[in-house]
Amino acid sequence: MAEEKLNWNTLKKRSIDGIGGLVLAITQDYKTGEVLMTAFMNQEAFEKTLETGKVHYYSTSRNKIWLKGESSGNFQKVKELFVDCDMDALLLKIEQKGGACHEGYRSCFYRKNSKGVLKTIGEKLFNPNEVYKK
Amino acid sequence: MAEEKLNWNTLKKRSIDGIGGLVLAITQDYKTGEVLMTAFMNQEAFEKTLETGKVHYYSTSRNKIWLKGESSGNFQKVKELFVDCDMDALLLKIEQKGGACHEGYRSCFYRKNSKGVLKTIGEKLFNPNEVYKK
Repeated sequence: MAEEKLNWNTLKKRSIDGIGGLVLAITQDYKTGEVLMTAFMNQEAFEKTLETGKVHYYSTSRNKIWLKGESSGNFQKVKELFVDCDMDALLLKIEQKGGACHEGYRSCFYRKNSKGVLKTIGEKLFNPNEVYKK
Repeated sequence: MAEEKLNWNTLKKRSIDGIGGLVLAITQDYKTGEVLMTAFMNQEAFEKTLETGKVHYYSTSRNKIWLKGESSGNFQKVKELFVDCDMDALLLKIEQKGGACHEGYRSCFYRKNSKGVLKTIGEKLFNPNEVYKK
């Protein structure tokens, strides 16, 4: 089998809410396996993530590249990177400093469904109002 | 704090490649924590998943709802369901029968990046040509 390469050109890009040229990224704690968050990357975010070893995303709400942790200090250090069968989604096993979620939790998936009602099961690690000074 | 509900109306829908009304779903092995796949759900897929306890997706390439396992027999049984802070992504902890990936692997993330080259690290569980009879 021919050697398969991973770079921006070999990825399949998607359009999210009308913004083209994005791939999905899922981050997972490299030790515990906890899924921490999901967001999108554009070319610059993808390439900066590989170059620096720190996860960068593209914010579809703010329309800009974003180094995760730039405001909070809660950087994500890449340990391993996987790509899915369709070449349109990345799985990054990372070392997460502090909490990944802008609401102050370790994981963005801090609420569990219980028959249509959401129960908060995550522990709050920081106060977003103190960390993200508006 | 008011009780937070989870249903189709409380989710934030996104447009993927021009197809509106979708939310992202990530599935993870409920025992090992292995991330198995990611795909999208429309309202019907979301509600059928809750009703039946078996994961349904919406295929953006085939433009149709899809019960995972309907061709392969590799159904995904929901154990726990989480929603993210932005209410636009779901994390489903599931019991996976066989392999989740249509290429025959346990996880769709069966290739790992090694300096720009993809190394297959997943074990092939089935032959897709035999399972998905064309």
